[in-house]
Amino acid sequence: MSLGVWLVGGRGSVAVTSIVGALALRAGLTAPTGCVTELPELRAAALPGFGDLVFGGHDPSTVPLTKRAEALADARVVPARLVAAVQADLAAVDADIRPLPAGPTQAGTAGLIIADLAEFRERHRLDRVVVVNVASTEPIAGPDPAHAELALLEAALTAGRPVLPPSALYAYAALRAGCAYVDFTPSTGARLPALDELARRQGLPYAGRDGKTGETLLKSVLAPMFAQRHLDVLTWSGINLLGGGDGANLADPAANDAKSASKQRVLRETLGQQPQGTVRIEYVEDIGNFKTAWDLVTFAGFLGTRMRMEFTWHGCDSALAAPLVLDLARLTGAAHAAGRSGALTELAFFFKDPPGDVPHGLADQYRMLTEFVAGLDQALP
Amino acid sequence: MSLGVWLVGGRGSVAVTSIVGALALRAGLTAPTGCVTELPELRAAALPGFGDLVFGGHDPSTVPLTKRAEALADARVVPARLVAAVQADLAAVDADIRPLPAGPTQAGTAGLIIADLAEFRERHRLDRVVVVNVASTEPIAGPDPAHAELALLEAALTAGRPVLPPSALYAYAALRAGCAYVDFTPSTGARLPALDELARRQGLPYAGRDGKTGETLLKSVLAPMFAQRHLDVLTWSGINLLGGGDGANLADPAANDAKSASKQRVLRETLGQQPQGTVRIEYVEDIGNFKTAWDLVTFAGFLGTRMRMEFTWHGCDSALAAPLVLDLARLTGAAHAAGRSGALTELAFFFKDPPGDVPHGLADQYRMLTEFVAGLDQALP
Amino acid sequence: MSLGVWLVGGRGSVAVTSIVGALALRAGLTAPTGCVTELPELRAAALPGFGDLVFGGHDPSTVPLTKRAEALADARVVPARLVAAVQADLAAVDADIRPLPAGPTQAGTAGLIIADLAEFRERHRLDRVVVVNVASTEPIAGPDPAHAELALLEAALTAGRPVLPPSALYAYAALRAGCAYVDFTPSTGARLPALDELARRQGLPYAGRDGKTGETLLKSVLAPMFAQRHLDVLTWSGINLLGGGDGANLADPAANDAKSASKQRVLRETLGQQPQGTVRIEYVEDIGNFKTAWDLVTFAGFLGTRMRMEFTWHGCDSALAAPLVLDLARLTGAAHAAGRSGALTELAFFFKDPPGDVPHGLADQYRMLTEFVAGLDQALP
Amino acid sequence: MSLGVWLVGGRGSVAVTSIVGALALRAGLTAPTGCVTELPELRAAALPGFGDLVFGGHDPSTVPLTKRAEALADARVVPARLVAAVQADLAAVDADIRPLPAGPTQAGTAGLIIADLAEFRERHRLDRVVVVNVASTEPIAGPDPAHAELALLEAALTAGRPVLPPSALYAYAALRAGCAYVDFTPSTGARLPALDELARRQGLPYAGRDGKTGETLLKSVLAPMFAQRHLDVLTWSGINLLGGGDGANLADPAANDAKSASKQRVLRETLGQQPQGTVRIEYVEDIGNFKTAWDLVTFAGFLGTRMRMEFTWHGCDSALAAPLVLDLARLTGAAHAAGRSGALTELAFFFKDPPGDVPHGLADQYRMLTEFVAGLDQALP
Repeated sequence: MSLGVWLVGGRGSVAVTSIVGALALRAGLTAPTGCVTELPELRAAALPGFGDLVFGGHDPSTVPLTKRAEALADARVVPARLVAAVQADLAAVDADIRPLPAGPTQAGTAGLIIADLAEFRERHRLDRVVVVNVASTEPIAGPDPAHAELALLEAALTAGRPVLPPSALYAYAALRAGCAYVDFTPSTGARLPALDELARRQGLPYAGRDGKTGETLLKSVLAPMFAQRHLDVLTWSGINLLGGGDGANLADPAANDAKSASKQRVLRETLGQQPQGTVRIEYVEDIGNFKTAWDLVTFAGFLGTRMRMEFTWHGCDSALAAPLVLDLARLTGAAHAAGRSGALTELAFFFKDPPGDVPHGLADQYRMLTEFVAGLDQALP
Repeated sequence: MSLGVWLVGGRGSVAVTSIVGALALRAGLTAPTGCVTELPELRAAALPGFGDLVFGGHDPSTVPLTKRAEALADARVVPARLVAAVQADLAAVDADIRPLPAGPTQAGTAGLIIADLAEFRERHRLDRVVVVNVASTEPIAGPDPAHAELALLEAALTAGRPVLPPSALYAYAALRAGCAYVDFTPSTGARLPALDELARRQGLPYAGRDGKTGETLLKSVLAPMFAQRHLDVLTWSGINLLGGGDGANLADPAANDAKSASKQRVLRETLGQQPQGTVRIEYVEDIGNFKTAWDLVTFAGFLGTRMRMEFTWHGCDSALAAPLVLDLARLTGAAHAAGRSGALTELAFFFKDPPGDVPHGLADQYRMLTEFVAGLDQALP
Repeated sequence: MSLGVWLVGGRGSVAVTSIVGALALRAGLTAPTGCVTELPELRAAALPGFGDLVFGGHDPSTVPLTKRAEALADARVVPARLVAAVQADLAAVDADIRPLPAGPTQAGTAGLIIADLAEFRERHRLDRVVVVNVASTEPIAGPDPAHAELALLEAALTAGRPVLPPSALYAYAALRAGCAYVDFTPSTGARLPALDELARRQGLPYAGRDGKTGETLLKSVLAPMFAQRHLDVLTWSGINLLGGGDGANLADPAANDAKSASKQRVLRETLGQQPQGTVRIEYVEDIGNFKTAWDLVTFAGFLGTRMRMEFTWHGCDSALAAPLVLDLARLTGAAHAAGRSGALTELAFFFKDPPGDVPHGLADQYRMLTEFVAGLDQALP
Repeated sequence: MSLGVWLVGGRGSVAVTSIVGALALRAGLTAPTGCVTELPELRAAALPGFGDLVFGGHDPSTVPLTKRAEALADARVVPARLVAAVQADLAAVDADIRPLPAGPTQAGTAGLIIADLAEFRERHRLDRVVVVNVASTEPIAGPDPAHAELALLEAALTAGRPVLPPSALYAYAALRAGCAYVDFTPSTGARLPALDELARRQGLPYAGRDGKTGETLLKSVLAPMFAQRHLDVLTWSGINLLGGGDGANLADPAANDAKSASKQRVLRETLGQQPQGTVRIEYVEDIGNFKTAWDLVTFAGFLGTRMRMEFTWHGCDSALAAPLVLDLARLTGAAHAAGRSGALTELAFFFKDPPGDVPHGLADQYRMLTEFVAGLDQALP
């Protein structure tokens, strides 16, 4: 089965790292380190192979993918030898990364997106397409009555009212075009009742929200540890220093709030209470792609004795996100093929802010994921 | 049901913290923070209450428990107000902490231990007694043919051959006396085929080995995280700085080796390979009871990109161990009542070096524990 | 010589720790750890002894000093045994900590402050009084033409114009009352041309600004190290987590800015450039008096190789500040006695934001301080 | 003036980084970051320029310098573009890095070393030669009566007694050959009375011992900070994790002891006492050239309040050492030209274990260095 992977933000660090990696994996030039779907427990016949993936996308930038890839090699995000080895394939993908279309109205813009998606699917004779949002984080969107129901939403769009934040407009267009949708950012995306209704009507699955790559990943194992040992977490404070990719954008307070809210959720869900402290995101240009996160946790143990732990995480966000983008494309594509529609709650393992009433401890999410994958294989003809 | 808790090393920091805590809990003066068996998912009718526990033990020291408790209060291990509040009860326990007996031969010593245990059980009319080893870590013991079978072992003892390390001799005496046995240290304890045979013959359960209180606890959630994300852990190095309690003793290379081996096992088991690096234990007297552990983990992600994490754990070993000692006494006592014998593999959650082929990830161990506790209740008449 | 030490914020953590400490030192109950003026190189005949210090002050609160001291003992800022030992002396000081006076105009308020200071000096027959500002940090004050000259300032005050921030009004009153002035906070204090003019006219010395107790102290030795090794500091980012004392107040963005600006100055001055990154101050109530500061420094070395260092500082602000308050009172009192007037630039060792063109490396500041103290002794009759 | 720089261990990481750097600096391809002698305060006419340096040395290995340099580029120790740019010059140096000679006796070996040095000086018509030991650390050498006096030493050598450790034999040969000597390692080198006597007789300067590049550099500014603030350092413990260069060799306990002793000296000297705790050096191959050092310092402040700091240093040893090797060659060569002989105590800034009764705080050492350099210029004709 051939699967189109349409990347919103197709020339960004995460997208380019994903494409370079998929091409290198297809050519057998590297090991699938970081790809969860390549673990023995998760390999499944139902999943498309790396060779079945065809990449396209939208991006406001016009810098060639090869240039972007070389910049990432200079920054040690991807090895220069791999970039050189896949240069030709990379250049071939370039034509499928289109400028972001803009219509006179949101309805008009949606129409142009749908047309691009249809054209992409036809030209490559794809069985299915998954749209993955790896664009910059957008500020938290205000509520609108039109978000409550598909009929109200489409009436508003027809009336020319700009009721959707960009990520949600994109999700609308993707679903209308018959594509599954994954939101790797903390943006609204498909997370509106009207869009959930559309996904179910169209028989399309969607997943999200906000890829869990670093500090929150650690929280999703450490917080359950404190809870299971009946230790009382008093404060949990952190700071993230990052330069490249989403950094500058997250320095914007509104986007920062969107991200921070998403980051603290795991504590509330796994500890049963919200400890004191906040997560701070700072843009420090020179830090580049290698984010440094520091967290301090103070807790009380037996008879109230105070203790503390600190950790520093020095990780490359693009390198941590890219393999998950490939995993999510494969899993969502296979879910679509298996007839799943609506929110894929079983993919909570990948996200900071998953939909539905799901466990937030990583181990439980992992078990849920393995059962989901086993189910996909059973659903095969 | 009344349960005797016989502590080997009954005047040490862990023992005294456990006793003070149990007395304070019985008097309703403190919350059971750190007591796993008081979590909603683990509360069970089959478990004896804190009020059902009666403490006794052996210790070479003769310093009164009240003095030890005051010293722990000065060191901020336990609150002074609690020590003051339970002083009378604590003084009452003092009489049941006996000098460590020593006979002319190991058989003779075992006989004296058995007599003390029997006397303790009768005087307090106890339904059962659990012996918990919280004495200092002993060096790794050499092998002996007599360890292979109970008959060979008892022949050797009768012949006056000193074939058992102290912890194992203690386990032998405990089992012969009809007591369940828990080893909270990395010492040999009941971990010999001959003693396993004895436990099963006697219909007695035993548990161990080496309580998981700090750095290894963190490893048991972090290592599975790396594995489940398919990240390649390259090196894992650590240092433990500790002063009080077991510190001076662990500075002894032989004991240090016993501890370090126990500490690295979780990595091999959860990562499927042993990363480079070792765990170092340093005795720094002034650090006292509040151990500081620092670990550095380096790992490779997608396309081989190198990343790293560090953590510092600043915990009070006695305060972390004591509630687990109470949990283990309650759980082992209930298992004995339920007719369980042999190694209690379901208690792996508590130990660095558990017996049997069990999961080493904390989340899986926790699930195993909840099922075990549910089973105890079902076994009730 | 008897020296009055008048503390603005006399019931705050820093003030109470200073008073308790001075009383304990006077009674010979503790060693002068943390008191720079008790180092062999700095002991000087010109300095008043701890027994010569008489404490008074202003504070809006009315909680007795003994209560405050007990609270600090519970928080482990000061030892309970010392608080108990000096209780009577502490109670005696209580009467000299007055409610903060407020007049109808700033001129009126100044008059009331002056009256309190005069009354304090007379009642205790003091040779001299030093006013030390240990009140909460105030927001950065806007400029006013009246700040430029004493005549303009007093004309404005007479006209009833509120032209001074509280700390500056206080400095004005102190100087008018013939008292030397020390600003331990980042507030404006005496740092206005009009007040410098007043100090020189009155023949009074003043010192400040913003006591250097933790993270900035470290910067004042680490930044020169990087500079002297010709290493290129690229980024320097930090976060301060604090609960007690000034914490809540610093959570206010305006005060936070005042503090952060003060904290980064040392880098610009010692590195000759301002690296990327900022200092963040977060209020986390449960953290209490023991502040945790974390800094990340990234730098380039030979041939541009990138390297990094991190540090965590876990210090008790009140315990770090209090001995410096005593040092500053002794030094400023002795400078007054020696006929010094205007800014005491030689005390840069103590401050984040010292006046004048002075070295910002701690070692150079220390040498300057030792020469200053030697000079005081030479000035003795 | 032309200066020969003869590197003992001429194909090791430090040596190769030094040579590549000097060639790149000569060609104006890079900035002199990390070169102390290029700071405005230290630039001096008396110092030979980078263009005046001519490299040679001894090494048991035969791997070409260009290969070594490429390996360092792969490890990110030096930029690949610089290695490529200086490849031809580097290849030219190769011929001057000779196999380590070995005679039948130590006297014989010394003769061969002297011959190589003389040949090197003549062939390049060098004004002077400085021998710099950047070979692996050797175990602490036992004492020998022959170390006390030159006459006794030469009698022993003539008698064929192997009385000198390799580094000292090398220093003997260098001094006999009329070359100044610098020991960048903790080995014995010229640090014997007999060799000091030889140096003074020959009118030759020597410097050492053990380059101060990372953790100890930090100690040399942090320890004085604690002392100058009258804070009581209770414990100072550290661990160094390193892979490349000297790592494997330092894993050897004897060499490790030599290094650790050298590393702790700064604390004793600057704090006036030796706090509890040790420095541990661990070889972790995969860590490579980028060493990670972690230190924990616990200290008491005012009224005995306990506090703590931690730091992590993640530095590239070769990149930190190489510019200092160039600095030391220039400074020692200029000192020789200025007629200095015996130990250059003024270079303590560069070493963990400097000779003589010198300050151990970095700031004082820096001032001493600036005065030394100023003196060199004054000595110019």
